[in-house]
Amino acid sequence: MSFDILQDKILEKKNPTVAGLDARIEYVPEHIRKEAYAQYGEGLKGAAEAIYQFNVGLMDALCDIVPAVKPQSAYYENLGWQGMEMLERTIKYAKSKGLYVIADIKRGDIGSTATAYAEGWLSGASIEGKTYKSFDADCVTLNGYMGSDSINPFLEAAKAEDKTVFALVKTSNPSSNELQDVGVKVGGQVFGVMARLLERLGAGTEGKYGYTRIGAVTGATHPAELAEIRSMMPHTFLLVPGYGAQGGTAEDVKFAFHKGGKGAIVNSSRGIMCAWKKTGGDGHDYQEAARNAALAMRDDICQYTSFE
Amino acid sequence: MSFDILQDKILEKKNPTVAGLDARIEYVPEHIRKEAYAQYGEGLKGAAEAIYQFNVGLMDALCDIVPAVKPQSAYYENLGWQGMEMLERTIKYAKSKGLYVIADIKRGDIGSTATAYAEGWLSGASIEGKTYKSFDADCVTLNGYMGSDSINPFLEAAKAEDKTVFALVKTSNPSSNELQDVGVKVGGQVFGVMARLLERLGAGTEGKYGYTRIGAVTGATHPAELAEIRSMMPHTFLLVPGYGAQGGTAEDVKFAFHKGGKGAIVNSSRGIMCAWKKTGGDGHDYQEAARNAALAMRDDICQYTSFE
Repeated sequence: MSFDILQDKILEKKNPTVAGLDARIEYVPEHIRKEAYAQYGEGLKGAAEAIYQFNVGLMDALCDIVPAVKPQSAYYENLGWQGMEMLERTIKYAKSKGLYVIADIKRGDIGSTATAYAEGWLSGASIEGKTYKSFDADCVTLNGYMGSDSINPFLEAAKAEDKTVFALVKTSNPSSNELQDVGVKVGGQVFGVMARLLERLGAGTEGKYGYTRIGAVTGATHPAELAEIRSMMPHTFLLVPGYGAQGGTAEDVKFAFHKGGKGAIVNSSRGIMCAWKKTGGDGHDYQEAARNAALAMRDDICQYTSFE
Repeated sequence: MSFDILQDKILEKKNPTVAGLDARIEYVPEHIRKEAYAQYGEGLKGAAEAIYQFNVGLMDALCDIVPAVKPQSAYYENLGWQGMEMLERTIKYAKSKGLYVIADIKRGDIGSTATAYAEGWLSGASIEGKTYKSFDADCVTLNGYMGSDSINPFLEAAKAEDKTVFALVKTSNPSSNELQDVGVKVGGQVFGVMARLLERLGAGTEGKYGYTRIGAVTGATHPAELAEIRSMMPHTFLLVPGYGAQGGTAEDVKFAFHKGGKGAIVNSSRGIMCAWKKTGGDGHDYQEAARNAALAMRDDICQYTSFE
């Protein structure tokens, strides 16, 4: 129920982190690129195949230590439909390895349009009365600027399939202040309005750990706001980007967790994917480098979070 | 330059409307569905092909009277990668017919992720130093909740290719008030903060008609806010959804236009696509029905807007 599936995987692996699968072709070691180009040509198809092989290698190296992966849709759409086809395969492979899949799509639309998205990403399209799944993630990220009309259709699809969503509250990027931090007359800031809305929409969908089906995205780069949001949203599971490359530290993200390492998951993308670029090798060691980076991240974050 | 291309097409056809290409399989007449299923099977591929044939038929019927089409990405993602492949073909066909293509994707992400999206949808992916285009729309819609970090990478891609973007300001759906209408301490409401941000980011990119490269989405269902936004954003081209099925009227949308029918385009999706369902026929007349609906919409809106 709800975020129980993800929380169980986190507790089992004693690791509250998620590995981003956000590969640009430049992140893929040369030997993988060369082989893919030789077979599929140097172009969109060849790049998609190279990234797929890289993703598979990363997941093979990480799946026994990391509970979840987060493919970022942008890097697949970057390659057009051939990237999207490869994303479907990536998600399927991740699930076959027992990884929880958070599709980072940040969609936001309304009514029948939101339903169309929710079907494509979570519950499957209906064609002449039969259901056909395609992207079939366990969880998606959403942008709720349009209000509850843009959240509820995803919540319905998530309920039907025992899946989950995360909606943006306070994002990790520098310009997140321009809208999200604006003070509102009712008190607090815009991100607080969003936080309260999400807690309200999720109410009644709590699982055994007490979290609703609607999680919140809250950046590690704003630790004060992270702590504020943790206390404003006691029933909400948090997805925390911004650790590592963007500047967030283990000390910053500790505010996201409830007792016993519960209620949050921290993302790292480039820190894991591109770890091989820092070993001095030619990329043949990318799996070992990613695994070492993932273990170091786990240990770093677990300094401040115990899993009792 | 900027929105000049779209504005020229509007003035040439004396029609400030855009036809949504948002087909669910249920909107496609039976004879087209049957033929596609016979050839490609009843499933994701068959549904994608049926919708493609429907889209082509609609564009053939509309391309001499309508300046632009707006495919909504949700209805293509609904069918997984096979829907996305069909979206690429739909966009290509639209451009071959001289239609301006607004890809309604409402993406919102930051930094290198926003760049990856912008490449996929506007400027093309870079692979080993060569550029490969895939979705290649003329314009995309964006969600700026994350601030300028989520707009600027698209603006850069749009500048490089003489393309454009629209970002959400005040949306047409009932729950848009939950966040967008919240009063802010600096005065006005959240949507006003977004409006000022977009005018600022677009400044300096005005074309011959005086509009920047960053347009704004403003729903027809809130005519008072539409008028307010028109005056707050004098250099911004407006995309106005919510006419017709959602309840917006020609009298409501008149506030979007500057003198001479400039500065705005009004969308209709179901009103045109599904017009055949109201003729009493079996769907063989879907092209005529769509054309008649598009002409009626044009005449309705032009009651209040002159193209001198």
